[in-house]
Amino acid sequence: MTKGERTHTAILNQATALASQVGLTGLSIGALAQTLDLSKSGLFAHFQSKEALQIEVLDHAAARFSETVLRPALAQPRGVPRMQALFDGWIAWVRDEALPGGCVFVAASAELDDQPGPVRDRLVALQQSWVAVIATSFRKGIESGLFSADVHPEQFAQDMVGVLLSLHFHSRLLNDAGAEARARRAFAALLDGAKP
Amino acid sequence: MTKGERTHTAILNQATALASQVGLTGLSIGALAQTLDLSKSGLFAHFQSKEALQIEVLDHAAARFSETVLRPALAQPRGVPRMQALFDGWIAWVRDEALPGGCVFVAASAELDDQPGPVRDRLVALQQSWVAVIATSFRKGIESGLFSADVHPEQFAQDMVGVLLSLHFHSRLLNDAGAEARARRAFAALLDGAKP
Repeated sequence: MTKGERTHTAILNQATALASQVGLTGLSIGALAQTLDLSKSGLFAHFQSKEALQIEVLDHAAARFSETVLRPALAQPRGVPRMQALFDGWIAWVRDEALPGGCVFVAASAELDDQPGPVRDRLVALQQSWVAVIATSFRKGIESGLFSADVHPEQFAQDMVGVLLSLHFHSRLLNDAGAEARARRAFAALLDGAKP
Repeated sequence: MTKGERTHTAILNQATALASQVGLTGLSIGALAQTLDLSKSGLFAHFQSKEALQIEVLDHAAARFSETVLRPALAQPRGVPRMQALFDGWIAWVRDEALPGGCVFVAASAELDDQPGPVRDRLVALQQSWVAVIATSFRKGIESGLFSADVHPEQFAQDMVGVLLSLHFHSRLLNDAGAEARARRAFAALLDGAKP
């Protein structure tokens, strides 16, 4: 990487960590410049607008999510091992030290659901593809006779997302120490209900 | 109500609607004054700080939630009717025209989970009491022999919150028209799994 590319990546790492805590709207180029010991104009040389920065933060987080959650899970055998890897990967993702404020997508989803524009559009596309990965992985399990065809892949995906969102809510907002064990029981029950 | 009380209530109604769209952090006394055709100083006469306004918005929304969701549900017979009323009431709540941006608590939860202080403390207390209402209602169902004692009330509550959060995510962010039907199927499966 050139020096410029390294700086660009360092800015994105810091911006993603900050967005996990204060949200995408809360990302301020001024605060970011201060944390990184850069001038505001130096930062603007990399990101022409707050919107451009927000979109790059989403893409940066998505690339990391893909690398740390999706790729290892999709390398697992179809059926329970792959679904369990997606579930476990998401839990590890939220604990990632690069995201001190939890999942940047969860924060952004509640924040942007009523803010039309290119940032919301990008977020929606990324979140749709995450839901589609779950549904497609489940569908491949049905095709291989590992899950019941009576369970719709979209139903499984929405239910699994619910288990994860409720875990995020109970653990991060309510500081409920029992939340992860309950989420694991709920997911086990979902998998159990999907047996052929 | 005196004129002052009417103005206070009008401000809170508008602020709650706005918070459902832009979040509590996005609530600006300036923007609010403009929408209500009041001076900023007139608004400050009612709320001495943004933080005081945010806490009153949470309490105002909670009072409305209590009136429109909790009270009618708790008047239902124990067991399935009461749990179903809590579920249906929450769905109606999110569609309430007073909340154009969906549930103000969902937005605030993702927004404030990393912002320590009195606003977060109030939000946590309100959300804990919502989860406790679900768990207590379920526990009373067990006591009356209407639900299985093998299902822990806290498990049921976390699972039900997950169904609702995933519905909010799929319908409000992803504009998924099938989300409500799937949420209803998921909840029916939860109730089914709780049969004695």
